[in-house]
Amino acid sequence: MQGVDPAWLPDEAFRPIGTRRTLIRGSGPLVDTVHAEVAEACARFGGRVERDAAAGPYDLVLELTGAESGSGGEAFTFERGAGRTTVAACGGPGLLYGLFHVVRLREAAFQGSYGPEEHRPASALRMLDHWDNVAVHPVMGQVERGYAGGSLFWTDGRARGELLGRVGAYGRLLAACGINAVAVNNVNVHETEAHLLTDRIGEVAAIADALRPYGIRVHLSVTFAAPMVLGGLSTADPLDEGVRGWWAETTSRVYEVIPDFGGYVVKADSEGQPGPFAYGRSHADGANMLAAALDPHGGTVHWRAFVYNHRQDWRDRTTDRARAAYDHFVPLDGQFFDNAVLQVKHGPMDFQVREPVSPLIGAMPRTRLAVEVQATQEYTGQQRHVCWLGPMWSEVLRFRPEAGAAVGELARGGLVAVSNVGDDPFWTGHPLAQANLYTFGRLAWQPDANPYRFLDEWIRLTFTPERTEEGARLEAGVSAVLAGSWKTYEKYTAPLGVGWMVQPGHHYGPSVDGYEYSPWGTYHFADRDGIGVDRSVATGTGYAGQYAPAWAKVFESPETCPDELLLFFHHVSYDHVLRSGKTVIQHIYDTHFEGVEEVEKAREGWASLAGLVDPARHARVTERFEEQLRSAREWRDQINSYFLRKSGVADAHGRRIY
Amino acid sequence: MQGVDPAWLPDEAFRPIGTRRTLIRGSGPLVDTVHAEVAEACARFGGRVERDAAAGPYDLVLELTGAESGSGGEAFTFERGAGRTTVAACGGPGLLYGLFHVVRLREAAFQGSYGPEEHRPASALRMLDHWDNVAVHPVMGQVERGYAGGSLFWTDGRARGELLGRVGAYGRLLAACGINAVAVNNVNVHETEAHLLTDRIGEVAAIADALRPYGIRVHLSVTFAAPMVLGGLSTADPLDEGVRGWWAETTSRVYEVIPDFGGYVVKADSEGQPGPFAYGRSHADGANMLAAALDPHGGTVHWRAFVYNHRQDWRDRTTDRARAAYDHFVPLDGQFFDNAVLQVKHGPMDFQVREPVSPLIGAMPRTRLAVEVQATQEYTGQQRHVCWLGPMWSEVLRFRPEAGAAVGELARGGLVAVSNVGDDPFWTGHPLAQANLYTFGRLAWQPDANPYRFLDEWIRLTFTPERTEEGARLEAGVSAVLAGSWKTYEKYTAPLGVGWMVQPGHHYGPSVDGYEYSPWGTYHFADRDGIGVDRSVATGTGYAGQYAPAWAKVFESPETCPDELLLFFHHVSYDHVLRSGKTVIQHIYDTHFEGVEEVEKAREGWASLAGLVDPARHARVTERFEEQLRSAREWRDQINSYFLRKSGVADAHGRRIY
Repeated sequence: MQGVDPAWLPDEAFRPIGTRRTLIRGSGPLVDTVHAEVAEACARFGGRVERDAAAGPYDLVLELTGAESGSGGEAFTFERGAGRTTVAACGGPGLLYGLFHVVRLREAAFQGSYGPEEHRPASALRMLDHWDNVAVHPVMGQVERGYAGGSLFWTDGRARGELLGRVGAYGRLLAACGINAVAVNNVNVHETEAHLLTDRIGEVAAIADALRPYGIRVHLSVTFAAPMVLGGLSTADPLDEGVRGWWAETTSRVYEVIPDFGGYVVKADSEGQPGPFAYGRSHADGANMLAAALDPHGGTVHWRAFVYNHRQDWRDRTTDRARAAYDHFVPLDGQFFDNAVLQVKHGPMDFQVREPVSPLIGAMPRTRLAVEVQATQEYTGQQRHVCWLGPMWSEVLRFRPEAGAAVGELARGGLVAVSNVGDDPFWTGHPLAQANLYTFGRLAWQPDANPYRFLDEWIRLTFTPERTEEGARLEAGVSAVLAGSWKTYEKYTAPLGVGWMVQPGHHYGPSVDGYEYSPWGTYHFADRDGIGVDRSVATGTGYAGQYAPAWAKVFESPETCPDELLLFFHHVSYDHVLRSGKTVIQHIYDTHFEGVEEVEKAREGWASLAGLVDPARHARVTERFEEQLRSAREWRDQINSYFLRKSGVADAHGRRIY
Repeated sequence: MQGVDPAWLPDEAFRPIGTRRTLIRGSGPLVDTVHAEVAEACARFGGRVERDAAAGPYDLVLELTGAESGSGGEAFTFERGAGRTTVAACGGPGLLYGLFHVVRLREAAFQGSYGPEEHRPASALRMLDHWDNVAVHPVMGQVERGYAGGSLFWTDGRARGELLGRVGAYGRLLAACGINAVAVNNVNVHETEAHLLTDRIGEVAAIADALRPYGIRVHLSVTFAAPMVLGGLSTADPLDEGVRGWWAETTSRVYEVIPDFGGYVVKADSEGQPGPFAYGRSHADGANMLAAALDPHGGTVHWRAFVYNHRQDWRDRTTDRARAAYDHFVPLDGQFFDNAVLQVKHGPMDFQVREPVSPLIGAMPRTRLAVEVQATQEYTGQQRHVCWLGPMWSEVLRFRPEAGAAVGELARGGLVAVSNVGDDPFWTGHPLAQANLYTFGRLAWQPDANPYRFLDEWIRLTFTPERTEEGARLEAGVSAVLAGSWKTYEKYTAPLGVGWMVQPGHHYGPSVDGYEYSPWGTYHFADRDGIGVDRSVATGTGYAGQYAPAWAKVFESPETCPDELLLFFHHVSYDHVLRSGKTVIQHIYDTHFEGVEEVEKAREGWASLAGLVDPARHARVTERFEEQLRSAREWRDQINSYFLRKSGVADAHGRRIY
């Protein structure tokens, strides 16, 4: 698309296909999409594509072996032999994913022999939640926690009719990394947005039409109070027959307009949103009511487990927000319908740069869980800082709550990311933040994969480096900037898993005590002697005991707790010696100096790529690096000054602390 | 006026006059105002008023002895003998002030013998600055730092045509406490407001018309960039002939519409506002240019001295915001025209609950200074807390920078308060905040007076207690709530003059480190050993040396510095013993516990007045007390917890600290 960055689908990525002879077999809308992709590549690079023809020879065969079905059929087989590469799928989506597999392999797709390999997604639902508002919110703006301009879907009060072409381009990018579902509006459903469910469903249908050619279904965030707000009922009680009837009827009408509608996303009884508690009902009651309305149509409700007391008294040490999701939901295990998916944030708090994996995951074997991560960098630099989150997500997905399945397998209800995309020409504000979106999609398909492999894929697709020394330098240079960027960010921000040392409200930049005396349940308890939250069973809030025994034991003691989570689980003195051999206070100083040095090095590394990277992209990243460096220095100096003033312990290396 | 609180002019306050026989001699618009006041009282209470009649007898004679002149003539004489009370003035304003003097005396005005006493204001200019925006500002709202609803003058984009009746009622209240000037818009002049000077001057004229019957002149805040913004010139250089011509012409046009226009108020080169620095000119150049334009018409420019670096690096200990006004302006002494008044905030920072008096006052003998205080309670509880500021202002006004004149005398350019009034039915949001407005007016008239006398006046006028035991209980009860409220507020907020421990941005509620790592020049430098800003000459920023020698010496040493300013001038350890005999840390704990106890007591005191106070007023104050108590406890607990955690020193009395 004109004026919009091609991201990981530049024309050049289609050269290997576009220069060859391709045969496509089968029919259906997604096969048409596959054909259009190949045909456009051939038109550009001189190759040839035919459909259902008998004669050969062909370099690539893409064939539908079964009848296309809307939601299934995502698997494909890939093989190469006798000079021919073959992708076979029994569904249109599988064929499309197979095509993009070929694109990712580049020239290698047409060399040597392969397979047959079978590829199928680990999870049937790989979803992006857009926290987009239809009407600009007075505080949160068009996109809540959005750092990439306005919304792709909405602009000040209505759907972007004229820009739906861009939504199509978005769908294409998502399909190319394996995403198959999008929730089109914010989980905080305000007045205007409530109406998308009923009188404004046509606008959602238009988005669905734009995304359907890429195998992507739309979902809608709804308010639990909809029967009252929209239906004029006097209650939203999930056990009330009138309410249940209203949801059933309303949902039927949604499916009349959007036959492949994905379902609802609900944030209930959370941060001020309405929910079943008002009627003395459980969250299973609430979720099941919506599941029952969706079931006849094959839809799913995603019910968020982000329920906690956000009006906590900071003086009250008996309440621990980290415990909340487990305490609220584990007693309900087995009560949720099969199409009621409980959507759990990956950590117990809220997308901090470092959290333990939520103990809820693994603790509800009879409930379909979806795991939610945050691609939008609310707490990780807001797309002004480079922070590639692949390794963090991978750690989560490969974590094993018990001997047995990893989180990636336990997430039977899907993997969900809060989207980092807006109407910015680079999609994500910071061009390098595209890597987060891409990596999320790929990890959702294959949660046990090495995320660095996806980073390499993304770099090769996006920057299409040539097989020259310069190309190698470009590839290595971009990789060096991104690969360690999460740990770098962690180093210069809140230390050792304690989290939350951000400016209240907008969450950008340091404020060590910003959330210390707040009602949000977010404390570090730093005093002149030490810091951290005692969440042990023996002497603390008992949170550590929410884990299965092996992990509970590891987290229970400061001696066995991993360094990077120490302050999340324990209150220790500044001279406590970490497993690394350093004291806590010296670790704080060292990591903060190192973090800034690493940003300086990354900035220089990026500067050295001038001439190898498209000038507009290079300039945008350069500009962001200036801000990242300024901000990282601010973090370093505020954090170090705070702890020097509080602890009185001098830096062992005598560096400047204010 | 219907639906609006009568404040300190309830009908009952006019009973002594309204039941008597009054003669009014003289003519002119303000004499007409006096006549209308007396006639209305007589209509209500059965008395009689005549004009220029010869026959008697009369209880009260109000006579104009000279020709009324617009701006002068504010003095009056008051005497009583032979059963007759006489007020004589040579100007209409004086006669009006004399009438309100009689009102204030109540029955006593008609008993015994007096005088003759001569009354004249200490300062010719007693002014309220309204920080009202014409267009609602996206962050600051209709009234910047306003806590009493919307603006009296403006509503979302235009003058309140239909409500100008209320502006008249406002003028009447102001005249009754001695105020004679009002600036009608915010010193931060945004786009819309800039136009008041030219194409929208008619709206200002309408306000002037409503206020003129009470002897009040209007002033206008203007942007220094007006010649560019409004005049289309390419510069605003104060020495440019085109610019000077533009201002001269524009000002002439203002006076065509408002012949008694007061002049301009300017915030230049301050917190982002434009100013002469952009052209390499001095602030004297800037102010004198406007003074020259105003001079032919008898107008004055009020040039604010609030100039400092608001983008300071918190790491930079060499810059001290407290020094800024003195450093900027003292070198310019003698360069300002006589109708260019330098308007100086009473303290060196920004209206904190406790600051030393600005060293600028007294240091510019050849410049007319106006002293600015803040009636709107930006940093003193935002009209949700009771905080009567009379004693604070009185301390400022009675402070003597050197042996010789007090601040109240040195303020030859006038006394100015930022208004605390809005369109709230009680005028000031918190009904008891009316006492601040009243006290300001009275102190501006007589800066050396005992402020508690004005508090008593205000209570007697507002609550009109009867001369009964209940009346005495009412009077004593209200007085007990208000008299010590400033010191109470000081106790539970930032200690010992250090200031600034507020939530950034809106400035309500505690945040000990909220401004500690900020660019605003607002630091307390607390560490585990001690707290405070070393502003001594010997080892600090040298600020103490900006005072004349006697005070410089007092402030220079922690041994002689007054306790309440200790942390403003010195960094001391927590175990430093105050002149009071307590350690700093124990003082912090004690005052914070005491402050909350005092609020609890005041709240009970107010509750006990139910039945004696108008129910609506009683309910409003009761509701505010709930919030004040909640907030005061929050202050107590956050401040005490912060310092306990930092210092490690236990409370000597073992009270609960978190």
